[in-house]
Amino acid sequence: MDTVREDSASSRGRRSRNGPSVGVVETRHVVLFGEEDDRLRLDSGARLGPITVAYEAYGRLNEERTNAILICHALSGSAHAAGFHGESGRDPGWWEGAVGPGKAFDTDRHFILCSNVLGGCVGTTGPSSIDPETGRRYGVRFPVVTVGDMVKVQKALVDHLGIPRLLSVAGGSLGGMQALEWALRYPERVRSACVIAATARLSPQAIAFNAVGRNSITSDPNWRRGEYSGDSVPALGLSVARMIGHITYLSDEVMHVKFGRRLRRNGLSYDFSREFQVESYLDHQGTKFVERFDANAYLYMTKAMDYFDVPETHGGGDLNAALARIQARVLVLSFSSDWLFPPYQSREIVDALLGNKKDVTYVNIETPCGHDAFLLEIEKEGSVIGAFLAATAEGLGQAPAGARR
Amino acid sequence: MDTVREDSASSRGRRSRNGPSVGVVETRHVVLFGEEDDRLRLDSGARLGPITVAYEAYGRLNEERTNAILICHALSGSAHAAGFHGESGRDPGWWEGAVGPGKAFDTDRHFILCSNVLGGCVGTTGPSSIDPETGRRYGVRFPVVTVGDMVKVQKALVDHLGIPRLLSVAGGSLGGMQALEWALRYPERVRSACVIAATARLSPQAIAFNAVGRNSITSDPNWRRGEYSGDSVPALGLSVARMIGHITYLSDEVMHVKFGRRLRRNGLSYDFSREFQVESYLDHQGTKFVERFDANAYLYMTKAMDYFDVPETHGGGDLNAALARIQARVLVLSFSSDWLFPPYQSREIVDALLGNKKDVTYVNIETPCGHDAFLLEIEKEGSVIGAFLAATAEGLGQAPAGARR
Repeated sequence: MDTVREDSASSRGRRSRNGPSVGVVETRHVVLFGEEDDRLRLDSGARLGPITVAYEAYGRLNEERTNAILICHALSGSAHAAGFHGESGRDPGWWEGAVGPGKAFDTDRHFILCSNVLGGCVGTTGPSSIDPETGRRYGVRFPVVTVGDMVKVQKALVDHLGIPRLLSVAGGSLGGMQALEWALRYPERVRSACVIAATARLSPQAIAFNAVGRNSITSDPNWRRGEYSGDSVPALGLSVARMIGHITYLSDEVMHVKFGRRLRRNGLSYDFSREFQVESYLDHQGTKFVERFDANAYLYMTKAMDYFDVPETHGGGDLNAALARIQARVLVLSFSSDWLFPPYQSREIVDALLGNKKDVTYVNIETPCGHDAFLLEIEKEGSVIGAFLAATAEGLGQAPAGARR
Repeated sequence: MDTVREDSASSRGRRSRNGPSVGVVETRHVVLFGEEDDRLRLDSGARLGPITVAYEAYGRLNEERTNAILICHALSGSAHAAGFHGESGRDPGWWEGAVGPGKAFDTDRHFILCSNVLGGCVGTTGPSSIDPETGRRYGVRFPVVTVGDMVKVQKALVDHLGIPRLLSVAGGSLGGMQALEWALRYPERVRSACVIAATARLSPQAIAFNAVGRNSITSDPNWRRGEYSGDSVPALGLSVARMIGHITYLSDEVMHVKFGRRLRRNGLSYDFSREFQVESYLDHQGTKFVERFDANAYLYMTKAMDYFDVPETHGGGDLNAALARIQARVLVLSFSSDWLFPPYQSREIVDALLGNKKDVTYVNIETPCGHDAFLLEIEKEGSVIGAFLAATAEGLGQAPAGARR
């Protein structure tokens, strides 16, 4: 293949800790479903619109419009997958290590798109948005949305950008569910899907963790049935929810390495201060999260995850039947120590795809990093994704965008 | 062995769902460390007294006083291990299936003792007790206690009852830690220890879950730095803590069987009500717990668990060195699906005992029941315990109590 790489000078000009970068980027916004007779029909039956969609795009769409890849983010992610906001080097994208020139999602070859999900709180319409009908924030009057609804909005964005078919849809965790959902809802619109650290249906254990997190938020008196103001948000409840989440994102194994039983100071304090390092880690994660995430959005995101049930939604309860409609090549990636969406749940998807004689690649990456591995094991994961995308593009006979500059 | 069993008539008179029972029992109370110059010296260095100890006793102490077994309870347990309070058949003991005539802890042969732990809230002195110096509840002025402190109080009770050496100390979870601690603190006072579903030191993951639970309690505005009154307790915070606990007591596997993704009603509700069965299970567990457990006691119990670190406390950081002092025969029991105190943590204890050429029996019971298995897999666990205790008694040439009636 006739690939033209960045020249070294320009590469040097936009390198980050994670190697070459797409550099400074901006989040764009588009309003969809704005017409009265064009509201989005949600899985619940409710209609919603207008919907503002926040998205970022990196790389160049080729003339044939065949090199577009949609990246879907996880629970706490945003449209900001790569590059930097403001001056270069600040506020890197959440998948900066995987997206950029010469990286797994190679912006020299591909046009990469990432949008904030419906029901979130980072630019796309969600419970903290203003309801045009009342002029006030939606709060819990915002309709419950599903992963399917998130995907419908992404599809509308892809239509809006004039992309007939995506080369790939990729994501980890909730993002992986969206990738799978794309291949099911719009089989003719995706050539491939990268379903990473995901599941075909949320397990009761994962529902349980989500439910307790929601309980913690709604138990916070500041929650006020979702009608809190910016001055007094349910910070303590949201913080506890996030701490629970973080325990499930790590593994027992990595916690031994990362924290062990190490104390913050020498000697036991014999009081209820946070004295183990693992306690201050969780505390820090909880506090940081409250500054950037909306408590109501947390309720909606986790509910969408709880509702995710591919066999039920697409196969009358049968996963094999559900996956029969998939046309895309599928890469399924799991991580050995992920106990939130354990490898066996990925294998269920793989088995059902194989049962349907679909084109599926499965890799289980050995790592102690737990569920978080999809954000951390960039090198291992990236090489698999890169090869999978290259093979998908090659099947198309697709010339990389760079070759035409 | 010349065992005289209950005659069938009397057995029939006190049968429960779990087979023959010790019948109606009462919790007794004794005040220890009552003298000014005889306060309990805690591991923290603080002194505490007087200490009321709630305990129950079943079966008969033999003349040689060699058939006494101490049972230690877990986080939410009490002195009420067996039999019934009030009319027979009501309020069964927490280990009713394992303790009674002809059962694993055979009250026809053994004198069984169980006391509520120091720092708890079911009869023994703890944060909800009245501080004699102020006339008010201790609250968080109660000193932080360790598993070692709990064991010191049990030792004082055993002294008080005139038992020179225990045939065994047994318990699951926090109770198993106490059993191990007994064998370490008072090696000459215990012939055997049954360390069930326990660990030699709490893992960072388990500390993390405890820390989040405590966070949830102290975030509840009703907690008021531990100065809450009976009318307004931190119920929501304690309830969330208990829910987190219950997720860790079950396994992913058993949750699939017990709840799956089943809903309480037909069809998704598209709101934030508790709609999955696993949600109402957790909700029920949380609500029930608040009715019977003190929030401050939850802080103290979990803190004692966090502090449990046998290698550090007894071996300068080395588990092998720590266990060298043990004289008791040790039974280590783990459960295959227990991920709170996973089998590998039991094997660490076993390996260190073997390294010290100690008399150790290890059984890992295959079960989907998770950590809760020590309360549920009574039949499998009971047969192992029964055989272990019989072998221990036989080594003593001990005639069962029943033989002398």
